[in-house]
Amino acid sequence: MTKIAVLGAGSWGTALAMVLADNGHEVRLWTHNKEQAADINATNQNRRYLPEVTLPKDLIAYDDMKKAVEDVTAIVLVVPSKATREICEKLNKVVSKPVIFIHGAKGIEPDTFYRVSVIMEKTLDKHISNGIVALSGPSHAEEVSKRHPTTVTVSSNVIEHAEHAQDLFINKNFRVYTSPDLIGVELGGALKNIIALGAGISDGLGYGDNAKAALITRGLAEITRLGARMGANPLTFIGLTGVGDLIVTCTSVHSRNWKAGHMLGQGAKLDDVLESMGMVVEGVRTTKAAFQLAILQKVEMPITAGLYDVLFENKDPKEVVDQLMSRVRRHEMEDLSSIMEDIYKG
Amino acid sequence: MTKIAVLGAGSWGTALAMVLADNGHEVRLWTHNKEQAADINATNQNRRYLPEVTLPKDLIAYDDMKKAVEDVTAIVLVVPSKATREICEKLNKVVSKPVIFIHGAKGIEPDTFYRVSVIMEKTLDKHISNGIVALSGPSHAEEVSKRHPTTVTVSSNVIEHAEHAQDLFINKNFRVYTSPDLIGVELGGALKNIIALGAGISDGLGYGDNAKAALITRGLAEITRLGARMGANPLTFIGLTGVGDLIVTCTSVHSRNWKAGHMLGQGAKLDDVLESMGMVVEGVRTTKAAFQLAILQKVEMPITAGLYDVLFENKDPKEVVDQLMSRVRRHEMEDLSSIMEDIYKG
Repeated sequence: MTKIAVLGAGSWGTALAMVLADNGHEVRLWTHNKEQAADINATNQNRRYLPEVTLPKDLIAYDDMKKAVEDVTAIVLVVPSKATREICEKLNKVVSKPVIFIHGAKGIEPDTFYRVSVIMEKTLDKHISNGIVALSGPSHAEEVSKRHPTTVTVSSNVIEHAEHAQDLFINKNFRVYTSPDLIGVELGGALKNIIALGAGISDGLGYGDNAKAALITRGLAEITRLGARMGANPLTFIGLTGVGDLIVTCTSVHSRNWKAGHMLGQGAKLDDVLESMGMVVEGVRTTKAAFQLAILQKVEMPITAGLYDVLFENKDPKEVVDQLMSRVRRHEMEDLSSIMEDIYKG
Repeated sequence: MTKIAVLGAGSWGTALAMVLADNGHEVRLWTHNKEQAADINATNQNRRYLPEVTLPKDLIAYDDMKKAVEDVTAIVLVVPSKATREICEKLNKVVSKPVIFIHGAKGIEPDTFYRVSVIMEKTLDKHISNGIVALSGPSHAEEVSKRHPTTVTVSSNVIEHAEHAQDLFINKNFRVYTSPDLIGVELGGALKNIIALGAGISDGLGYGDNAKAALITRGLAEITRLGARMGANPLTFIGLTGVGDLIVTCTSVHSRNWKAGHMLGQGAKLDDVLESMGMVVEGVRTTKAAFQLAILQKVEMPITAGLYDVLFENKDPKEVVDQLMSRVRRHEMEDLSSIMEDIYKG
């Protein structure tokens, strides 16, 4: 049994806390929201984010970060990628002994292009860190909370740290694999949200499954291309954290990135979409980061560029998707072989 | 304008005939069923396979193969893979001048392990063939018949033949790419049906999107592994005819392979499933072929093997899927790197 703090009581943080509690760990679920913490402890439910699910009894919510992390040996960060820096700075003040940090966020920071683990590494005091691990994969929180079979991947620059995280989380319903490719695991999870927005738009326009499958396939090619250029192993993109997560995010109504895209496709404006969601849509920020990165790295990313135009240049979604569908190339291998080149260069 | 015969008036044959008619070609749609041909010509509809859709006026149905292929320069074969040999033998008797053959079937023959184009090549008389082309990709017939945006790939051992087929089919809504990798295009289209059966079973068991995404991802790895061993370019499996078609087939209720799996997952017996479908479920036969092939080629295909046990050894679907989900490997790259090896060997 290990004492573990999970920071962030959204649906994913709560689901991960449940997995850890199921494994017999002492789990503290921290939220900055006093009322939410009180409600969770009073009702044994996270009524806002995981209605209908009863939480394990020994899962206790905290709104005091210092108390939540006291004596823990592992901290699981499940906050929007945007909040990572701020939370890490707070952690520097309240964590005294070294712990292992595991994060479950999926984003890339615009302008700096930092992955979440890089922000953590740059922000967390060295003397409190026993390693940084990313956890990613095709995993709707709702299903994990109902103990449906789920597989995820944990990754770290130091494989032993990933294996440590694996030992904490793995159980009969929650299968955990390790990967040494931290860059690929984090980029896949983040970049797939761009494609999910696009898939949502296509669905919102009423274009059907054929069009969406084409978009997802081309999307996989372009995020793999960027990933390879950034030092990822392209094969990671056909694994759980790549194509696996891409499929789940693009084809499920549970996905908030898909949902946001769907509303855009139906004609809603971005500001209204974001306001009505009430949750963070990571794909929006990641589209900006990837768009900037593609220009900088001279990587061709037509779907990302089209989405950027829709999100930030007020371009008509239908026009953009129609343009993407009628691209002039005749030979499919032209698209794919640029990935091949990246594999061989790598 | 070209005279073209489409053989097979199921949903896919009819949809492809509509695309060709939209492009201004003179299209004859052949079916062995006299009544169906008469009904199509009387109603301008294919009421059994594409209800609600009005066919182009110049699309004429034939039940006489000799008349249907008279003076055509292209023949499109859209019959169940099992019927390929028989139809080709009939064609040898009625085709007099060389034509280009394009097929839209997705299967592998058990025992011989022939792809559909190989059966055609071995059966068709040399002097009537101007080339053999495979057409494949993520394309529900229902959506194509409604002119929703769709992308497919055509492939041939001779790239000019694929380009010829591309010219016949391509239009604003139906985007056609070429690929030189005939083996990969045909194997991807055929093998993905195995994974669709598995995805259907998982859904039938109520396991959710996370489990299905994991199964699809592992499935993609194992069919890529077999494909590479058979001489395909592994990259083809992350293209339209691989992951694209896989996604459409595994996540859509339109897919008959998924549907058959879904019924199996809910406890139905194979014979009853096949009888109630009333359409050919290519994945069943392909599972047998791939299972044999995996043993022969010493390629690890756990999902295919599990499905074989369900389909032909009467094993409990739940037991098989549970076993697949709890495989002992800890490192995801073990699975993926065997593909990498195949890439480098190739």
